[in-house]
Amino acid sequence: MLNNDTIIALSTPPGSGAIGVIRLSGPQAITLTNSVFGGKDLEKQATHTLHFGTIKDGPVVIDEVVASLFVGPKSYTKENVVEISCHGSNYIIQQIISLLISKGARAAKPGEFTLRAFLNGGLDLSQAEAVADLIASDSKASHEVAMQQMRGGFSSELKDLREQLIHFASMIELELDFAEEDVEFANRDQLLALVQRINKVLHRLIHSFEVGNVIKNGVPVVIAGKPNVGKSTLLNALLNEERAIVSDIAGTTRDTIEDEININGVVFRFIDTAGIRETADVIEAKGVERTLDKMKQAKLIIYLVDAQETEAEVLVQLAGLSKQSIPYLFIVNKAELLNASQKDSYLQQGALLISAKEKLGMDVLETALLEKVNLSHVNTSETLVTNIRHVEALKQTQNALNRVLENIHNPVTSDFLAMDIKQALHYLGEITGTVTTDDLLENIFTKFCIGK
Amino acid sequence: MLNNDTIIALSTPPGSGAIGVIRLSGPQAITLTNSVFGGKDLEKQATHTLHFGTIKDGPVVIDEVVASLFVGPKSYTKENVVEISCHGSNYIIQQIISLLISKGARAAKPGEFTLRAFLNGGLDLSQAEAVADLIASDSKASHEVAMQQMRGGFSSELKDLREQLIHFASMIELELDFAEEDVEFANRDQLLALVQRINKVLHRLIHSFEVGNVIKNGVPVVIAGKPNVGKSTLLNALLNEERAIVSDIAGTTRDTIEDEININGVVFRFIDTAGIRETADVIEAKGVERTLDKMKQAKLIIYLVDAQETEAEVLVQLAGLSKQSIPYLFIVNKAELLNASQKDSYLQQGALLISAKEKLGMDVLETALLEKVNLSHVNTSETLVTNIRHVEALKQTQNALNRVLENIHNPVTSDFLAMDIKQALHYLGEITGTVTTDDLLENIFTKFCIGK
Repeated sequence: MLNNDTIIALSTPPGSGAIGVIRLSGPQAITLTNSVFGGKDLEKQATHTLHFGTIKDGPVVIDEVVASLFVGPKSYTKENVVEISCHGSNYIIQQIISLLISKGARAAKPGEFTLRAFLNGGLDLSQAEAVADLIASDSKASHEVAMQQMRGGFSSELKDLREQLIHFASMIELELDFAEEDVEFANRDQLLALVQRINKVLHRLIHSFEVGNVIKNGVPVVIAGKPNVGKSTLLNALLNEERAIVSDIAGTTRDTIEDEININGVVFRFIDTAGIRETADVIEAKGVERTLDKMKQAKLIIYLVDAQETEAEVLVQLAGLSKQSIPYLFIVNKAELLNASQKDSYLQQGALLISAKEKLGMDVLETALLEKVNLSHVNTSETLVTNIRHVEALKQTQNALNRVLENIHNPVTSDFLAMDIKQALHYLGEITGTVTTDDLLENIFTKFCIGK
Repeated sequence: MLNNDTIIALSTPPGSGAIGVIRLSGPQAITLTNSVFGGKDLEKQATHTLHFGTIKDGPVVIDEVVASLFVGPKSYTKENVVEISCHGSNYIIQQIISLLISKGARAAKPGEFTLRAFLNGGLDLSQAEAVADLIASDSKASHEVAMQQMRGGFSSELKDLREQLIHFASMIELELDFAEEDVEFANRDQLLALVQRINKVLHRLIHSFEVGNVIKNGVPVVIAGKPNVGKSTLLNALLNEERAIVSDIAGTTRDTIEDEININGVVFRFIDTAGIRETADVIEAKGVERTLDKMKQAKLIIYLVDAQETEAEVLVQLAGLSKQSIPYLFIVNKAELLNASQKDSYLQQGALLISAKEKLGMDVLETALLEKVNLSHVNTSETLVTNIRHVEALKQTQNALNRVLENIHNPVTSDFLAMDIKQALHYLGEITGTVTTDDLLENIFTKFCIGK
């Protein structure tokens, strides 16, 4: 079996902290820990108990630790689990992990603890995926959505629909067994009503992804414009910190720097980019390449011009900007340098006037950003799909059910009907993991962090 | 009292990990956690037990967690301690900490858990300081030294000396009380022998700092040389990774980038610096300023020249280099471009020949680095002083005892004798915390990370 070995990993973030937690799971988790533990005999202790002691490599004390015991199946993975809480030194953590690996543990792969929780029936697949989302959640909305999914909200909604569909699938199978007698076990009108009801749910779920994705991943925003119009300064003003090196030399920003802000619960991922211009400078060229690449990923462009540019220069850029397909905000920076009539003229063209350096106009800009993404209709108490895998499975389910609708009143095609319902069931099952393949599991869990 | 309130902090490093651990300590630690905990009644549970449940803000579930209970005095701080193990999302961690603060906990100051452990008698001061060293330890040697100190090695050595000295102090006090009768309770020869014995230990400990400091902090090495001789490439070759941006444009390195390598247990902190040259470029100028600053901190300079430079150019640099006081290694890079006689000539001047780009000569360079710091005599089983505060206290003790030696056979100065012995006792006591002031404690514990 897959779970015959005992896995080990650091479960807390790497880096210096007060403590680090090393997690083991598997049949030998307690025995292995006990073999290097100076203190009580851990194999004789009850589940859900804590034990102070030392981790020793022969006579050498590596650390003073606290060991937490979870005796399977009363654990996250349903196996024996030990969590060793040690001092948060990378050196100590490495020493303890190496020591336990030398005793027979194996370094865990990303997500392997949660994979075991899934395989041992502790979580379904969409719940397991929600664990990763929960860890990555960085706003109220993304947290709520992930928590709802982890606690089974999505799963129970699908489970219900799936069970009703299974009922019809078996009825139609039965019809096929009695094909010569031309009986109809599955009431076609009821089936039609069910499929229509499911399709309605699918439609809602699939469309919820648009919002769900923004909630989970944030809105990617590119700040673009000619060199030295104040893009880095604007980013700093928005982030309210000195994130990018700012100088008054054109072309200072060489690396794309990503950062996020949370405006009224919506996360905007700002992508600061190298100035867009023709350049002979090797380093700058790399930067410009990356800029163009990033532009394509953006859902929104903040396009900056300098108030000192001539109107002609500005109009050329505005024209170019309006040609491309990504929504944009047109911003005139250093607006304190404009006179009243210039300001009026820009405002009439829909520009926002700001001074990034003086942090003027930031509130107007934030409001404009929120308006552009228009998430006022978000209701996180409804199930929102945030996972591209789930959307794909839901779309496949929808396709299969649409074929069901086409054939539902045609007695000749009962075979197809049964096949399409089975396909719909298959794809629905993929979401919660009732149906899985090794590839699917590997795909999902390699995206996890190690130690979960 | 200081400890009437309950403190809270994240004890694991910030950043995304599988789990985060939030620690509370104080009389209300269990009660406060219980007030937001969905699950068993934590106030009715035994010490050293683990409890699965939810953290709830009213009806809203913030996370599913495991709570570890340590009922005082059976805890690190000797107070009630709860550790909440939650999903490693910054959002969740912030929510849980805010919630518990709203219920009455207070955000812990850096090192405040360990401060409480010290104030409640769980650790002496040098042990408490070793906890911070242990967390920061990144090599076998620094780990061994910190572990020895945390487990009381240093403390017990000092405690013994201090107790003998206390005995003499009280004898001399007694003499002062009977000053008119001219008795001598404290045998001057025995006192002399003791002070000499102590001084010998102090001498050894004070001198051990030279090694101890290198073990704890690593050897700061500056890589210097003209622009574009390959300093960043050399750093990368040593680190064996692409740490610095390397381009073939002079002046690419703008920020000082620090990194460490561990050569045979000795940590070298490499300081890569902006090219040393006169420059009109604003950003470069900042870099050069930082370089010169860093140079002063270095214990060793790796000075790089380019094999393509003329001999005259090289000799000028070598002359300049030999004038300053920091030890250096003189390296000729791009040595593959030299002919045999050029190589000979450089070798005779004591240069090392390498090719950073081709990673040739790295082993010779590493050996030379180890030779320059000459730590072959390190014996980590002896007590090593690694803390500048301890060295200062030891030196003050030594000063006081030297005054004792001056006055020991002068009966007129018994008052001074008593005073100087008391001073010696005071400074010795400062190391282990027998004698403390609020300033001293604040100084020590603010250097800790939060959550420890």
